[in-house]
Amino acid sequence: MQLDTLSTTFSALADPTRRAILSKLTSGQASVTELAEPFEMSMPAITKHLKVLEKAGLIERGKEAQWRPCRLRAEPLREIGDWVEHYRIFWEQSLDRLDAYLKTVTAKKKSKGKKHGRKKHIQ
Amino acid sequence: MQLDTLSTTFSALADPTRRAILSKLTSGQASVTELAEPFEMSMPAITKHLKVLEKAGLIERGKEAQWRPCRLRAEPLREIGDWVEHYRIFWEQSLDRLDAYLKTVTAKKKSKGKKHGRKKHIQ
Repeated sequence: MQLDTLSTTFSALADPTRRAILSKLTSGQASVTELAEPFEMSMPAITKHLKVLEKAGLIERGKEAQWRPCRLRAEPLREIGDWVEHYRIFWEQSLDRLDAYLKTVTAKKKSKGKKHGRKKHIQ
Repeated sequence: MQLDTLSTTFSALADPTRRAILSKLTSGQASVTELAEPFEMSMPAITKHLKVLEKAGLIERGKEAQWRPCRLRAEPLREIGDWVEHYRIFWEQSLDRLDAYLKTVTAKKKSKGKKHGRKKHIQ
């Protein structure tokens, strides 16, 4: 199945190892061996992940014959950022509702506390 | 395989139909029939997509017996937004580089144009 660009990017990101590889590459280019180090994974398994990331345009490999370093390519992530930005208003609304709810609960607790305090004094 | 929350969300978003469903739900809640309308898809196929979205917490279904409307839940998208935000500096750098490159090209073209113009005057 031919995936659209956005689907290919989302699909490539749906794996914690691939996201960890991208995170590592934010510190600069790295060899496959360096990328494989933190993961208890075989080289073929890492190479498979790198191929998925490369196909999605999220990394690029150097052309050096001996050492083909991987570099982060962030352009496809901009697309993700643009896409998700349309939904910001909705999650901010949810947070506003949560905030309002928490304020009500806190206010109720305070009000109960005061009543409780008064009772204590009466008793 | 048990996926982490972020992977489940990314995976659910890696499909144009599912993203279109979320987009439609930004206008308000909708029944499965209403959601199925724009797509040339069987009801079981749409239901399958809805189940993926529901499992990822991206939609919730009403409890009404006859009509179980779907509603958008944007909280998991906030996580995506937070995640992608860490990479903003990298795609903005890429855009800066592109911008710098375009400025150089435009400057070169202008300079060539001037030379060309001068030649014409000389000739």
